[in-house]
Amino acid sequence: MQFPYALLEAHSLTAIEEQAACILDEIGVELQGDPESLEAMEAVGARIEGERVRVDAEPLRALIGQAPDRFVWQGQSAAASVTVGGDHRPVLVPFYGPPNVRQADGRTRPGTLRDYRDLVRFCEASPALDSTGFQLCIAHEGQELVPYMELALAHLELSDKPMMGSVLSEEALRNVAAAAGVGSAADGCRLLHLINLTPPLVYQQNPLRCLRASARMGQASLVTSYMMMGATAPVTVAGALAQGLAEIMVGLALTQIYRPGAPVVGGLFATPFSMQFMGPVFGTPESHLAQIAGCQLVRRLGIPCRGDGLLTSSKINDAQAGYEGASALGASLAAGADLILHAAGWLEFGRTVGLDKLRADEALLRASLSQATAVPA
Amino acid sequence: MQFPYALLEAHSLTAIEEQAACILDEIGVELQGDPESLEAMEAVGARIEGERVRVDAEPLRALIGQAPDRFVWQGQSAAASVTVGGDHRPVLVPFYGPPNVRQADGRTRPGTLRDYRDLVRFCEASPALDSTGFQLCIAHEGQELVPYMELALAHLELSDKPMMGSVLSEEALRNVAAAAGVGSAADGCRLLHLINLTPPLVYQQNPLRCLRASARMGQASLVTSYMMMGATAPVTVAGALAQGLAEIMVGLALTQIYRPGAPVVGGLFATPFSMQFMGPVFGTPESHLAQIAGCQLVRRLGIPCRGDGLLTSSKINDAQAGYEGASALGASLAAGADLILHAAGWLEFGRTVGLDKLRADEALLRASLSQATAVPA
Repeated sequence: MQFPYALLEAHSLTAIEEQAACILDEIGVELQGDPESLEAMEAVGARIEGERVRVDAEPLRALIGQAPDRFVWQGQSAAASVTVGGDHRPVLVPFYGPPNVRQADGRTRPGTLRDYRDLVRFCEASPALDSTGFQLCIAHEGQELVPYMELALAHLELSDKPMMGSVLSEEALRNVAAAAGVGSAADGCRLLHLINLTPPLVYQQNPLRCLRASARMGQASLVTSYMMMGATAPVTVAGALAQGLAEIMVGLALTQIYRPGAPVVGGLFATPFSMQFMGPVFGTPESHLAQIAGCQLVRRLGIPCRGDGLLTSSKINDAQAGYEGASALGASLAAGADLILHAAGWLEFGRTVGLDKLRADEALLRASLSQATAVPA
Repeated sequence: MQFPYALLEAHSLTAIEEQAACILDEIGVELQGDPESLEAMEAVGARIEGERVRVDAEPLRALIGQAPDRFVWQGQSAAASVTVGGDHRPVLVPFYGPPNVRQADGRTRPGTLRDYRDLVRFCEASPALDSTGFQLCIAHEGQELVPYMELALAHLELSDKPMMGSVLSEEALRNVAAAAGVGSAADGCRLLHLINLTPPLVYQQNPLRCLRASARMGQASLVTSYMMMGATAPVTVAGALAQGLAEIMVGLALTQIYRPGAPVVGGLFATPFSMQFMGPVFGTPESHLAQIAGCQLVRRLGIPCRGDGLLTSSKINDAQAGYEGASALGASLAAGADLILHAAGWLEFGRTVGLDKLRADEALLRASLSQATAVPA
């Protein structure tokens, strides 16, 4: 067993947790357009004012304590299933969401269904990647988007590995779950849903609905606060973590209200917002510190924690991409992240999946992780 | 304060230490061409057979225990002095030893004295680098080498920062020390000498003499085992660490025999030896594991530990260089290394200092280390 790297001592973590409690109590979190979420929070003692929810941290912690510290994420075959959490090596999930594909010849263009299916095949064949993810690229057909069910079918037809589900809408989530054979929670956890809240301190309607549907079906919710420090969160790492912890605690608690024991992963992701070009930058020292301390905070909730992989702001796989990616991945590995999203293939702030970069990243992950157990422990 | 990343648990570290003790007791270490070293070891209970020294680990540990856990490495001005060891951020020392210089136009050629002086100026001006090192490149004048004293004068004329000393020969070491104003140990530690032993299990004559001269003058000895796993050390990380620990313990103990309390740094550096091109490769996962566990072992000797910086096997500053360098530096930072050698500028297995890479690396170090204290601790 490898010990995660403890960036912060207990008293610093406690100080951040106390700030998060203060944010929850005094400022609260907005749950937009979803009365059922407000009722659920009110039933556990929250104070509701319009769509704003103020709540004590302790009952939320007690609820989150019902979530498992590890769970099996099933593939189509049992051999492909993986455990998220515990003393295993981190579960590796490819990139998520890029609209563009950078071809081997260096040209970048919008993704297509054909790209999508090739990407699923690549992830399926990889010894390093544990999942085929979802939304590997945004697939276009001319000006139109390829229907989400086509993407789901690519995973189901071409891969045995665990997959993520659609969070396009609650309906999409349910339809993909049905296609994947998920009838009820008794079927176990087959899908992992990316539930992104909207910092600062907002959950929009769609993630709230998807979270509820996912939890009730016993599927996993990856509740993530993706913060831009200096724009949607405080500019300091400690301040951003306090905000993010308050944010994810609400979503995580909701999963346990809907279904005690529903599997979850907590993610605190914070990247600096560049005032120079008005966007987030990736692979920076600030985000590595946030990553490591964020995992410490999530672990103290008793649930598995998310890390991020070979991120970069660079448009090509150059020295910048190598340096930023290795630093980001290294922070996640040192932090003891249980699940690493965007593990491979990411370019240009996540706007592009690079086909060459995906291959190179995958080879690096294979080399790194096959050695992760080489030292007697 | 940041906790170092504990890769190995106590029982694994103990197992490696027991193997090192077994190597010292049964196989021993060869001290070549230097009878005074043999006599010194015999006086503390070692068994001498020819030039081979077999010894119990415990008395060596007791000797090494006399070395300080931190020491001040003096610059020419007090403001430039740094503390090696303790809770400070790691002391950063530039690359050491490359014969070639890669110019900004991409051409690589042998280094010159002019390059050398420019490199000293760059290191002096850098807010990130704490030392100007020594042997920043091998300086040539036509087919001849530039005399070592010219290099020393470059440091003394152009820089206030702490510098390393010459280990070309004992005479060179003494002459550079005299030029730097070191008369006796009472002058404090002004120079740090790189004492490389020769794995497997050999100290050659020159390092033994330099180590003795350095210790007696109260100057610091950076005793390092630079192992190539699969060639000059076992192919496994654990095996290499056991060998390396046995090796450095002899040199470290010698410093304390010569002068109890002499400042030292311990270095366990292990890189895989590629059977494909018959040479060591840098920035690999194996060496990161060796780095982290090696720092744990050195720390248990009660002395400061060495890490390595932005190493790479690549000839240019490309994705490979970025990835390998960030991984190596990240391992050293996570390991809590007290002094990082080869922090910046290294290319092509250490054969070349890249001028562009030096600038880029220095900027990265500045960004990384200015943030290292951004989180409340």
